[in-house]
Amino acid sequence: MSVQAARAPSPQPPILLREIVGSVAVLTLNRPAARNSLSEAMIGQLHASLNAIAEDRHIRAAVIAANGPAFSAGHDMKELTARRTDPDRGRAYFAQIMTACSAMMQAIVRLPKPVVAAVQGIATAAGCQLVASCDLAIASDAASFATPGVDIGLFCSTPMVALSRNVPRKQAMEMLLTGEPIPAARAREIGLVNRVVAAGTEREAAIALAQQVALKSAYTVKLGKEAFYRQAEMSLADAYRYAAEVMTENMMARDAEEGIGAFIEKRAPTWRDE
Amino acid sequence: MSVQAARAPSPQPPILLREIVGSVAVLTLNRPAARNSLSEAMIGQLHASLNAIAEDRHIRAAVIAANGPAFSAGHDMKELTARRTDPDRGRAYFAQIMTACSAMMQAIVRLPKPVVAAVQGIATAAGCQLVASCDLAIASDAASFATPGVDIGLFCSTPMVALSRNVPRKQAMEMLLTGEPIPAARAREIGLVNRVVAAGTEREAAIALAQQVALKSAYTVKLGKEAFYRQAEMSLADAYRYAAEVMTENMMARDAEEGIGAFIEKRAPTWRDE
Amino acid sequence: MSVQAARAPSPQPPILLREIVGSVAVLTLNRPAARNSLSEAMIGQLHASLNAIAEDRHIRAAVIAANGPAFSAGHDMKELTARRTDPDRGRAYFAQIMTACSAMMQAIVRLPKPVVAAVQGIATAAGCQLVASCDLAIASDAASFATPGVDIGLFCSTPMVALSRNVPRKQAMEMLLTGEPIPAARAREIGLVNRVVAAGTEREAAIALAQQVALKSAYTVKLGKEAFYRQAEMSLADAYRYAAEVMTENMMARDAEEGIGAFIEKRAPTWRDE
Repeated sequence: MSVQAARAPSPQPPILLREIVGSVAVLTLNRPAARNSLSEAMIGQLHASLNAIAEDRHIRAAVIAANGPAFSAGHDMKELTARRTDPDRGRAYFAQIMTACSAMMQAIVRLPKPVVAAVQGIATAAGCQLVASCDLAIASDAASFATPGVDIGLFCSTPMVALSRNVPRKQAMEMLLTGEPIPAARAREIGLVNRVVAAGTEREAAIALAQQVALKSAYTVKLGKEAFYRQAEMSLADAYRYAAEVMTENMMARDAEEGIGAFIEKRAPTWRDE
Repeated sequence: MSVQAARAPSPQPPILLREIVGSVAVLTLNRPAARNSLSEAMIGQLHASLNAIAEDRHIRAAVIAANGPAFSAGHDMKELTARRTDPDRGRAYFAQIMTACSAMMQAIVRLPKPVVAAVQGIATAAGCQLVASCDLAIASDAASFATPGVDIGLFCSTPMVALSRNVPRKQAMEMLLTGEPIPAARAREIGLVNRVVAAGTEREAAIALAQQVALKSAYTVKLGKEAFYRQAEMSLADAYRYAAEVMTENMMARDAEEGIGAFIEKRAPTWRDE
Repeated sequence: MSVQAARAPSPQPPILLREIVGSVAVLTLNRPAARNSLSEAMIGQLHASLNAIAEDRHIRAAVIAANGPAFSAGHDMKELTARRTDPDRGRAYFAQIMTACSAMMQAIVRLPKPVVAAVQGIATAAGCQLVASCDLAIASDAASFATPGVDIGLFCSTPMVALSRNVPRKQAMEMLLTGEPIPAARAREIGLVNRVVAAGTEREAAIALAQQVALKSAYTVKLGKEAFYRQAEMSLADAYRYAAEVMTENMMARDAEEGIGAFIEKRAPTWRDE
């Protein structure tokens, strides 16, 4: 009808929702019809949001959640396939997307604030990688996890970088070679998630966990998270040399002086920037 | 009796049986009276068979199984001991066997096709290493695993290379220092095997699992398996750089184009070389 | 009263008890009122005792246990805080303590004899690190484990070096970021301890486990323990090259000749130095 025709086109809903709950930023993948696939735009918005969170001193932790039945189906295969008509058959574009996606995943690891995944449904391929890349993960008992790229001729090579740093070798190989999903309870057994909660409570549980860490000293969490991933790649002797230096720096900081003082005096500490 | 004496000596049964089931090669250790120990001949035949499997394009996956009550007892102690009368007291021979055995184990890791262990009985020392070296492992609920070299003054040093890349540190140390066997269920808990099945069904289950992977694109499985073990030894940043390149190459390959196309068009893919 | 005043001051009980049970040295943290915190003196006595154990050929294994309700609360915060009045605000002292503590933890790893933790109560921060640094650990079902430095503004950076080499990444991160204790059963699930036993039997169980290893060839255990931690930091190819050399050396040693001979002849071996 003409009345409808006269209306402006209904605006597209944003593909990534951003909310602040307490001092926690909640990013929600919001392309449920596309199973929250990690399109170029989604990767870009996630990375930009992580950068914004890094710089916002009021935000102390982040949660990555998703709307709809799937957490994330990984890369957007239609978007990738459309570039096969490029003069180079898509090579440059594919390289660009894989690099951009890897950079976004590493931005989670490098973010000086904890990131908690809230997994409500199936997380596949780069969607599973997104969970593995977070520092912590809460899964609904209805969630599942898979790296099924092998079924479409595209091995989950970038997802396995994160996956294999979370779970033992044979269990990672089983997921990668068979493509079969594993339920949330098994994901917890092999180390991919921290806790499994009743379906519908995973977002709340992830925010509560993030908020718990957000109440600690931001300086201390930042220092510790960075040191964790750095020392993990060192020999034992190098890791101890490095960690002993980090501890000494930490001891000299105002929040350690306050925190240790409060501990000895049996009172609650007051962190800087609170 | 003379009639018997006149007969040709009954032929020795082969120490390694080779069968093809579908597109899966099944290698069966067949020296049950010697508890399938990894003699020089057995190591040689295993390595040669793995090389043949690598080059046979009709074979897409392999299973390593065993006949008799034990899966494998590891090195052949009588064969090794016999060389103590060599002028160098056996040193050169021991070095040669340890190097040959390590090369065979690494040939499993480097084989561009998945290898599944089917463990029907106790797997000890280099026999346990053989299981740990496979990409995947199915154990009978009657199977068990041990690294008991410490009990005979010969620490399971080469077995621990594979074992400690499958299971957590303290659990590996317990096996290595005590020599005590662990049952199949515990082996699954600590990551050494993927699944435990009813005794007598492990061979069938391993073949079924191998066949499941054999139906995927051989190109993709080869690319992915190689990338898995390579990235596992890199820093996170290097692993992502490498894996993003692998993904881009993978995207340009015919099987990914076919597989992704089939996925989008909701039809079954047809892999090259099928 | 004067009679009392005339008495010599009652001697301070030693902060670290040393006992020999069979061929096992048992070190017992004995500052229960201070929750067995790792003061400068305690770190020094532990390190000196480990050095003495290394050189005593009658001792084949060690147990680290503790008296009182806590296993160890980690660093002595009062002792550290007292040095904030130093001209450099304590920096040099803190660096010295962190380096000394890391060196003591690494002395456990380098000790050519197995070390078993017997954890009767809560092990926190560097106390948890002490458990993680041992080769093996037995926990009472009343024990628990935490890295709560984040709660006092001092991230458990040195503890995480040992912790993250025992347990999967997300589970380590949960302990480090939340500071929450985990019960013994969960510690076993994630790899931090080997066994959980009834409260009150952990010391006995740890000594029995240590004694079990102590009955093996000391040469073999020494060789194997050292090789374990060295190969863990190598690539697969380097680890195999190194382990094959270790195996060859091991084969040439008297205890392997005796052990393998005894195995073939079905008799009990007699180790050198017994």
